[in-house]
Amino acid sequence: NTNLKVFSLNSNIALAEEIAQHVGTTLGKSSVTRFSDGEIQINIEESIRGCDVFVIQSTSAPVNEHIMETLIMIDALKRASAKTINIVMPYYGYGRQDRKARAREPITAKLIANLLETAGAHRIITLDLHAPQIQGFFDILIDHLMGVPILAEYFESKGLDELVIVSPDHGGVTRARKLADRLKAPIAIIDKRRPRPNVAEIMNIVGHIEGKTAILIDDMIDTAGTITLAANALVENGAKEVYACCTHPVLSGPAIERIENSKIKELVVTNTIALPEEKCIPKITQLSVAELIAEAIVRVHEEKSVSTLFD
Amino acid sequence: NTNLKVFSLNSNIALAEEIAQHVGTTLGKSSVTRFSDGEIQINIEESIRGCDVFVIQSTSAPVNEHIMETLIMIDALKRASAKTINIVMPYYGYGRQDRKARAREPITAKLIANLLETAGAHRIITLDLHAPQIQGFFDILIDHLMGVPILAEYFESKGLDELVIVSPDHGGVTRARKLADRLKAPIAIIDKRRPRPNVAEIMNIVGHIEGKTAILIDDMIDTAGTITLAANALVENGAKEVYACCTHPVLSGPAIERIENSKIKELVVTNTIALPEEKCIPKITQLSVAELIAEAIVRVHEEKSVSTLFD
Ligand SMILES: Nc1ncnc2c1ncn2[C@@H]1O[C@H](COP(=O)(O)O)[C@@H](O)[C@H]1O
Ligand SMILES: Nc1ncnc2c1ncn2[C@@H]1O[C@H](COP(=O)(O)O)[C@@H](O)[C@H]1O
Repeated sequence: NTNLKVFSLNSNIALAEEIAQHVGTTLGKSSVTRFSDGEIQINIEESIRGCDVFVIQSTSAPVNEHIMETLIMIDALKRASAKTINIVMPYYGYGRQDRKARAREPITAKLIANLLETAGAHRIITLDLHAPQIQGFFDILIDHLMGVPILAEYFESKGLDELVIVSPDHGGVTRARKLADRLKAPIAIIDKRRPRPNVAEIMNIVGHIEGKTAILIDDMIDTAGTITLAANALVENGAKEVYACCTHPVLSGPAIERIENSKIKELVVTNTIALPEEKCIPKITQLSVAELIAEAIVRVHEEKSVSTLFD
Repeated sequence: NTNLKVFSLNSNIALAEEIAQHVGTTLGKSSVTRFSDGEIQINIEESIRGCDVFVIQSTSAPVNEHIMETLIMIDALKRASAKTINIVMPYYGYGRQDRKARAREPITAKLIANLLETAGAHRIITLDLHAPQIQGFFDILIDHLMGVPILAEYFESKGLDELVIVSPDHGGVTRARKLADRLKAPIAIIDKRRPRPNVAEIMNIVGHIEGKTAILIDDMIDTAGTITLAANALVENGAKEVYACCTHPVLSGPAIERIENSKIKELVVTNTIALPEEKCIPKITQLSVAELIAEAIVRVHEEKSVSTLFD
């Protein structure tokens, strides 16, 4: 595999190292630093001419720094004659800005897709996009991996019974269904509605949860408002205990405090986003997506040794 | 001028307000904030359908934040049916990454040009690019304004005599020549060379400076190493006093301390980059480019009312 190279940018070096190990290589030599004025300085310190290059970078916070690192890295790889430039973006930032919810709003998720293509990316490998429609924002190939099997395997290993898988909102029912299939459990849905404007939301639970072990699932947990309110509502309505899980632990602002103070027994996440030490609380279990991504890299690389998929 | 709109992003709101005033309008209503996780949220709060929109934004520090604000704003304006989107970038960041100085380096100045075009910009108005060649990086129209007349006018008003205009390096001679023409003064050049590797540089001054008032000129001053060493060399070699000037006060890292401790009597800069309070030291005089930019905006807008220059 001498013409397969894996490089890391700054968002998630630990994951990148783990991925490289699973691929059977070590990370390519490069330095991604800042000039005195804050401009990004990238040096690729080994030849990548004719190689299939895979760059590991989540566009997690600081999202704008991480996006610019990615674009500048692509430019450097292109000018250094990489054969293909494959961006492995375990977490795709700006995924929630995927439609015009109001007049005169940007669709930043589409903009980012265009920017990656303009810079020179040939292919994107990502996990659990906020909406699967984002795949259609790309004219280049995109591989869309799923965190659900990893989360399912973990819950299976715990040997929980009388399970119910709960979607915290209508938008997440398809995802809950997938986890429920794996765990052979029924689903429930938190059905929020506001009877009149400026009146508190009512949390109605559709499905049987009494006496059961509930597992809430979402694609990402950001400020953790939705998920902690949902967990508390489940307990108030008779659930025996409540787990929560998601692929992307964004965990910004009050998230950690809310989780600590909630009825959630354990929150299971993946390492698509690196957690700084202060967010590694005992309640949070982090599972690795390294093997899943490494498999995708090898698959993509081997397909391409047979026939080049793109130019 | 009801179909001319001026918007500001976050890098230099004071300059934007001044520009709007000179154009005879007020800033368009928009909010450019951050979501909890650091993602940029832009709302344009008035209709811009069919308008020539001018967005004022320098890509000064934090440069990556300011670039992303610009790109997302362009996306929002495009989707809100602006007639033309004109990006006024008084300071064009990443201008020094304009060529491959070493193997496997990016050319970020070109990347940024491509990103602005991809997002949907129709025209760029900027001042004193680090290299005029950067104009050629754009396939869209670019107006390249010069700070020299503003600097010259200020020095004229001081009534200094026995002047010599000094370029701190070979690359800046053309710029020094322009200021010298305006001030009817001769030029000198600091000719640095390193006799052998790992031996200190020798500062040789080409031109007559003894007993004269020297004005050093550069396009930007970043860490201020070059300019302060040059100033001290001029004084040691008999200059009566030393002024320095530039268009873009980047002033990162040790810049302010170096300027304070140098032989520079006064540093004259423009407001293409906003100076935070701690950088507004008595030695620094900041001149406004608002009128110059406002004239360019009106010129561009009026040309276009006659015939649309681009689609
Ligand atoms: N980074 C962000 N943090 C919080 N809310 C966001 C963010 N980006 C977009 N949104 C909002 O989230 C909504 C979309 O989320 P969803 O309905 O879950 O698809 C949109 O109305 C956006 O205004
Ligand atoms: N933001 C920056 N800060 C300091 N040096 C830079 C920066 N960007 C590029 N450079 C370096 O500056 C050199 C170009 O500057 P110049 O020779 O003045 O055109 C290149 O060799 C770059 O490596």
